[in-house]
Amino acid sequence: VNFCSDNVTGAAPEILDAIVRDNAGPRMPYGTDDVTARVEARIAEVFERDCAVFLVATGTAANALALAVVTLPWGAVVLAAGTPPPHGVHGVQPAALSLTQATEAGTVYTPAKLAALAAAARERGLKVHMDGARFANAVAALGVAPADLSWRAGVDVLSFGASKNGALAAEAVVFFDLVQAETFAFRRKRAGHLFAKMRLLAVQMEAYLTDDLWLRLAGHANAMAERLAAGLARLPNAALVHPRESNQVFIDLPEAVISGLETAGFAFYRWGAADATQIRLVCAFDTRPEDVDGLIAEATRLSAA
Amino acid sequence: VNFCSDNVTGAAPEILDAIVRDNAGPRMPYGTDDVTARVEARIAEVFERDCAVFLVATGTAANALALAVVTLPWGAVVLAAGTPPPHGVHGVQPAALSLTQATEAGTVYTPAKLAALAAAARERGLKVHMDGARFANAVAALGVAPADLSWRAGVDVLSFGASKNGALAAEAVVFFDLVQAETFAFRRKRAGHLFAKMRLLAVQMEAYLTDDLWLRLAGHANAMAERLAAGLARLPNAALVHPRESNQVFIDLPEAVISGLETAGFAFYRWGAADATQIRLVCAFDTRPEDVDGLIAEATRLSAA
Amino acid sequence: VNFCSDNVTGAAPEILDAIVRDNAGPRMPYGTDDVTARVEARIAEVFERDCAVFLVATGTAANALALAVVTLPWGAVVLAAGTPPPHGVHGVQPAALSLTQATEAGTVYTPAKLAALAAAARERGLKVHMDGARFANAVAALGVAPADLSWRAGVDVLSFGASKNGALAAEAVVFFDLVQAETFAFRRKRAGHLFAKMRLLAVQMEAYLTDDLWLRLAGHANAMAERLAAGLARLPNAALVHPRESNQVFIDLPEAVISGLETAGFAFYRWGAADATQIRLVCAFDTRPEDVDGLIAEATRLSAA
Amino acid sequence: VNFCSDNVTGAAPEILDAIVRDNAGPRMPYGTDDVTARVEARIAEVFERDCAVFLVATGTAANALALAVVTLPWGAVVLAAGTPPPHGVHGVQPAALSLTQATEAGTVYTPAKLAALAAAARERGLKVHMDGARFANAVAALGVAPADLSWRAGVDVLSFGASKNGALAAEAVVFFDLVQAETFAFRRKRAGHLFAKMRLLAVQMEAYLTDDLWLRLAGHANAMAERLAAGLARLPNAALVHPRESNQVFIDLPEAVISGLETAGFAFYRWGAADATQIRLVCAFDTRPEDVDGLIAEATRLSAA
Repeated sequence: VNFCSDNVTGAAPEILDAIVRDNAGPRMPYGTDDVTARVEARIAEVFERDCAVFLVATGTAANALALAVVTLPWGAVVLAAGTPPPHGVHGVQPAALSLTQATEAGTVYTPAKLAALAAAARERGLKVHMDGARFANAVAALGVAPADLSWRAGVDVLSFGASKNGALAAEAVVFFDLVQAETFAFRRKRAGHLFAKMRLLAVQMEAYLTDDLWLRLAGHANAMAERLAAGLARLPNAALVHPRESNQVFIDLPEAVISGLETAGFAFYRWGAADATQIRLVCAFDTRPEDVDGLIAEATRLSAA
Repeated sequence: VNFCSDNVTGAAPEILDAIVRDNAGPRMPYGTDDVTARVEARIAEVFERDCAVFLVATGTAANALALAVVTLPWGAVVLAAGTPPPHGVHGVQPAALSLTQATEAGTVYTPAKLAALAAAARERGLKVHMDGARFANAVAALGVAPADLSWRAGVDVLSFGASKNGALAAEAVVFFDLVQAETFAFRRKRAGHLFAKMRLLAVQMEAYLTDDLWLRLAGHANAMAERLAAGLARLPNAALVHPRESNQVFIDLPEAVISGLETAGFAFYRWGAADATQIRLVCAFDTRPEDVDGLIAEATRLSAA
Repeated sequence: VNFCSDNVTGAAPEILDAIVRDNAGPRMPYGTDDVTARVEARIAEVFERDCAVFLVATGTAANALALAVVTLPWGAVVLAAGTPPPHGVHGVQPAALSLTQATEAGTVYTPAKLAALAAAARERGLKVHMDGARFANAVAALGVAPADLSWRAGVDVLSFGASKNGALAAEAVVFFDLVQAETFAFRRKRAGHLFAKMRLLAVQMEAYLTDDLWLRLAGHANAMAERLAAGLARLPNAALVHPRESNQVFIDLPEAVISGLETAGFAFYRWGAADATQIRLVCAFDTRPEDVDGLIAEATRLSAA
Repeated sequence: VNFCSDNVTGAAPEILDAIVRDNAGPRMPYGTDDVTARVEARIAEVFERDCAVFLVATGTAANALALAVVTLPWGAVVLAAGTPPPHGVHGVQPAALSLTQATEAGTVYTPAKLAALAAAARERGLKVHMDGARFANAVAALGVAPADLSWRAGVDVLSFGASKNGALAAEAVVFFDLVQAETFAFRRKRAGHLFAKMRLLAVQMEAYLTDDLWLRLAGHANAMAERLAAGLARLPNAALVHPRESNQVFIDLPEAVISGLETAGFAFYRWGAADATQIRLVCAFDTRPEDVDGLIAEATRLSAA
C-alpha cells in the first residue's frame, strides 16, 4: 500500500471517463476548443468573479509561469512574511509573496491568516501568489468558499491544482487581475506549455469541477488522513510533527515501528534530518479505509512487540 | 469534416485503452515507474541502439529542450543547409542544424539526402537535430528503418513525436549520443516539463510502439492523403504546390472551389500569401475514406459548376 | 595611416584633459556623484526636454539594455520598416523598430524620413529605438537640432554614443519617456554595467557636451570623409557604393589600387562579397587632412600606373 | 575626508599617466591590440603559469561572467564551505564555490585555509572561483606569491580586480584551466562587456602590474588601515568587529563618537543591524596618514568628552 504521495495515483473514475467520452471527433487545437471555454467559465463561477484562466499540465509550470508574470527578472519571490528591505539596485527586489495552500507541512491557512499575510505583502509592494497544488484539500478542510481562500484574502494569482487530487495532469493558472494576465499566453507558448490537444487538460478540469467532484475527492483524502492520524497518535511514543489539517500526516514514531511498516510492505517517505524518526503519510482521493486501518493495525502490533 | 491538422484528433483506440488499463494502482512519480523504463528500452529496440530517452508532452518542449542541449546561448540554430560563416565573437555562432521530417511542406527527406545534409553540417561543426513531429509519417512513407532516418544518417538528437499520430500528448526526446544527453533531465525539470504522473506519457508511448501501431497509424494517414491528392489533382486548374509525400496535401484550387468547400462544411486552412488560392489538407490516423471521397466529390461538383 | 574604424582612436584632448583634471579627490560611487548629475542635466538641455539618462561604457550594452526595456522576452526587434504581422502566441511579436543613425552604410536619415518610419512603427504598436553610435555625425551632417533627429521624430529611446567620436568609453542611454525608463537602473546593475567609478564615464560625457565639442569633432570627421570621397571618386573606375553623408566612405576601386594602398601601409577593411572590390574608409575626429591627401595621392598614382 | 570605500578614489598617478601616454595614435579594437597582448603575458608571469586572461571594466561583470562559465543554468553558486547535498533534478545543483579574497569582513584567507576549502569543494565536484576585487590587499597582507592564493590553492578562475586599488575601471578574469576559458570570449561580447577601445582597460592593467605597483598601492592601503585600527582600538568602549587584516576596519564605537565624527565631516558607512554602533572605515591607495591621524584625534577627543 502506497502512502508516498498523492501523485502516485491514477485518475478518479469520473475524470478518466471524461477523457474517454471526449475522445471521438475533432476539436480545434491550442485551447480554441469549446471545452476549454467552458472550463474558463466554470472556474469563474467557482471563484465567484471574472478571472483569466490558463491550463497547463504540471504544477512546476503553473507556479513558474505565474511567478514570472508578477516578478521582473531581478525580482525575488518571498516564501515567508518577513521580507528583507530592498537595497537599491545592488540586490534583488522583493516582488512577490508565494504561499502554499495546503502547506508542505500539511497545515492550512485560514482566510484571516491569509488576509493578514497578503496585507503585509501588499504594504511592501509585493504581489501575492498561491501555490494551490492542494488547494482543494484546504477548501474541503476549512469548509469555506474558494474565493475566501484566494482573491477575497488578497491573492493575485493562484496555481489551482488538480493533478494531486484525481486528475492525471491538469492545473489551472487563475489570475484575479485581468491586466496582470495579459502576457501569460505568450509565456505559456514560449515555455512549450501550450498543448496542441488542450482538450486533454480541459476535459479533466471540467470533470474535476462538475458536481463538486474536486471537493468530494479532497474531502475523502482529508478524512483518510484524519483516520490515520487519530489511529497512530494513540500509540506510545508517537507524536504528530505538525497538526493534521489536510491530507498529509507527519508523525514521529519509534524506529522499530517505522522499519516494521516498511518490512510489511507499506510505502512512504522518511522525513526530516538524517537521524530523525519521522515519516510522512499522504492520503489521496482513492485511499481505502481498509488500507488505513491495515497500517494502523500493523503499527499497533509493532508498537506492542 | 476537419482537415485542419493532425492535432485536432483524439487518441487512437489502442492508446486510449492503454490509459484506461493502466489507471488502477499506484505508480512511482517523475519517471521512476516501470512503464517509463519499458518505453526507454522499447525505443532503443526500435532504433537498434542504445539511446537516452526523455518523455515530454509537447513538441515545442521536445524541440526547444533538445536544441538547448546542442546549442550554447549564443549558438544559432540553422534551418537550412547553407550556413553563414561565423565572424568571431561579434555574432551568433552556427551550432546546430535542425531538420523537420516529414517537412512542413509535407515532403520527406530520403536517407541519402539526410546523410548529405548532416555531413555538410558536421563539417561545419554543427550538431544535427531532427524535429520528428511527423517522423512516423516519414518512416511509413519511405519504408525504411527508423535508424536510417536518424542516427545512421547523422542525426544526433530526435524529437520523436506521437501527439500528431494518435497520442493525446506524448513526445520522446531521443539522444543517440549519451554524453550529450547528460544535462537533459535537469533542463526538463527546470522548464516544468517533468511530469509527476509520467505514467500518462509512458503508457501512451508504450501503446504507440506496440505491434507497430505507430507505423500503421501513419501509413493510414499517408494513404488517405494520397487518395485526396489523386482525387483533387485531376480537377481542372488544380495543381499540387508540393509533391504529396506524407500526410499533408498542399494544393492550388480555383477560389470558387475553395469557398464552396468551406460553405459545405469542410474545415481546413488557407495557405501562402494573402491573395493565394492554396489550401492545406491534413489527414490523420483516423481520417475516414468516405470523408476523403466526400471532399473530392464536392470539389468535383464545384469545379464543374 | 589607419582608416579601419572610428574606434581605433584614443580620446580627444579635451576629453583626456577632463579625465586628468577630475582625478584628484573622492567622488561617491555608482553614479551618485555630482558630475553624473550634471551630465544628466546637460543632456536634457541638449535634447530640449526632460529625459532619463543612464551612462554605460559600450555601445552593445547601451543598445541591448535599451532594447530590453522596450521588448518583452518574446518581442522581436525589427530593423527595417516592413514588419511581419504577428500570428498569435505561436511566434515572436514585433515589439520595437531599431534604426541606426548614421547608418552602417554611412548615410543619414532626415528628420522627415525618420518621422515617417517612426509613425509606421507606432501604427503597428512598436516602440522606436535609435542606435546612435554615430548620432553626432548625423546631427553635424544635417545641421538640425538633436531633438529633430530623436524624440520630435518619434524616437522613444536613444543610444547616444561618444566612444566613436572622441571618448574612450562612454555612451548614454536616453529615454524620452520617463515611465519606460523605470526599470533601466536594475537592468544596468544586473548586467554588470553599473560602474563603481562612474566619474570616469561622466567626465568624458561632460567634456563631450561642453562648448559643442561633440559636434565639432563629428563635423571634422565628416569633412575629412567628404574630402576623401571627392578625391577618390574622380579616379577612373571608381564608384561610391553609398552616398557619402557622414564620416564613412564606401567605394569601389580597381583591385590594383586597393592592393597598392594596402602595400603602401594604409589600413582599412575590404567590404561586401568575397570577390568584391569595395573598401570602407572611416574618418574620425582626429583624421588629419594630410593623411587624407596622402591616400588620395597614392590612389591616383596607382590608378595611373 | 572619505573613508566610505576604496571605490571613491580616482586613479593612481602611474595609471593615469599610462592612459595619457597611450592616447596618441591608433590601436586596433576589441582586444586585438599590442597592449592587451602584453597584459595577458604579464599576468601569466605574475601567476607563474599559462592562463587565459580577459579584461572587463567592472567587478560585477568579472564575477558574473566567470561564474557563468563554471555553472550551468541550474547550478548553484555556494558562498561557504558547508554545501547542501543535491537532491536529484528537483533542486539546483551545487556547481561552484565562490570565495572573496580579501573577504567582505576585511579578513584574509591564508593559503592553507584556501587549500582546505578548495579541496572540500572539489571533493563535492564543485569548481572554485575567487572574487579578487581586493586580491592585491590579500597578497600584500600575507606576503605570499599570487599563485599561492590562487591556482596552487585550488582556485580555477579568479576575478583579479584593479578598480578598487588604483585603476579607474579594470578587472581581469583569469582562468587557470584553459579549457574552461573557451566560451568566455563569447560570453563577454554577448553581455556587452567587450570594449571597442580595449586599450583603455589594457593600459591601466599594464601600469598596475609594472614594478609591483599593485602591491605597493595595496600595501599602503593596508598600512593605513592598521594605523587606523590601532589608533581607534585604544579608545574606551571601542572594539574591532573583525580582526584588521587588509584595508578595511570594522569597529564598534560609542554612538557619541560615531555621530561626532560624522558631524566633523568624516565620511564612512554605518554597518550591521539598525541599532548597532558599528562603522566600516576603508583605506585606499591614496589615503593620507594625516587624514588617518586626524580621524583618530577627533575620535579621541569625542571619546574623552
